[in-house]
Amino acid sequence: MLKPEILDPQGQAVQRALPRLGFEGVSDVRQGKRFELEVEGPVDDAALARIREMAETFLANTVIEDFTVRTES
Amino acid sequence: MLKPEILDPQGQAVQRALPRLGFEGVSDVRQGKRFELEVEGPVDDAALARIREMAETFLANTVIEDFTVRTES
Repeated sequence: MLKPEILDPQGQAVQRALPRLGFEGVSDVRQGKRFELEVEGPVDDAALARIREMAETFLANTVIEDFTVRTES
Repeated sequence: MLKPEILDPQGQAVQRALPRLGFEGVSDVRQGKRFELEVEGPVDDAALARIREMAETFLANTVIEDFTVRTES
């Protein structure tokens, strides 16, 4: 997701459109990317470290984006 | 996220690039959108139903995308 201090025009466009569509009560909208990775083998600490490295160096632009790694089975 | 049966060229492009960057062991990559909404008032069942309605009618293209609603405080 874009870092909080980075302007998010897409998120703002969504937020402005919601009341026109009849949806009130949403004070902020942020839009970002989500990747789902299927990993071979156990998702142990070593695998998680590799995935964090993938996110840091390739999947996210860490100059303007924060990322979170979550595991789902 | 794109439904499983829908081709995901962006996800495939990422998956093909990973080995070239030295990242092995990722058997599939799916890419999608993520929205973070800040909601005024309690996130009760009524609010969640409204958010699902927003996702269904506006934030997701339910012809080709599935969506999940999660609450984070």
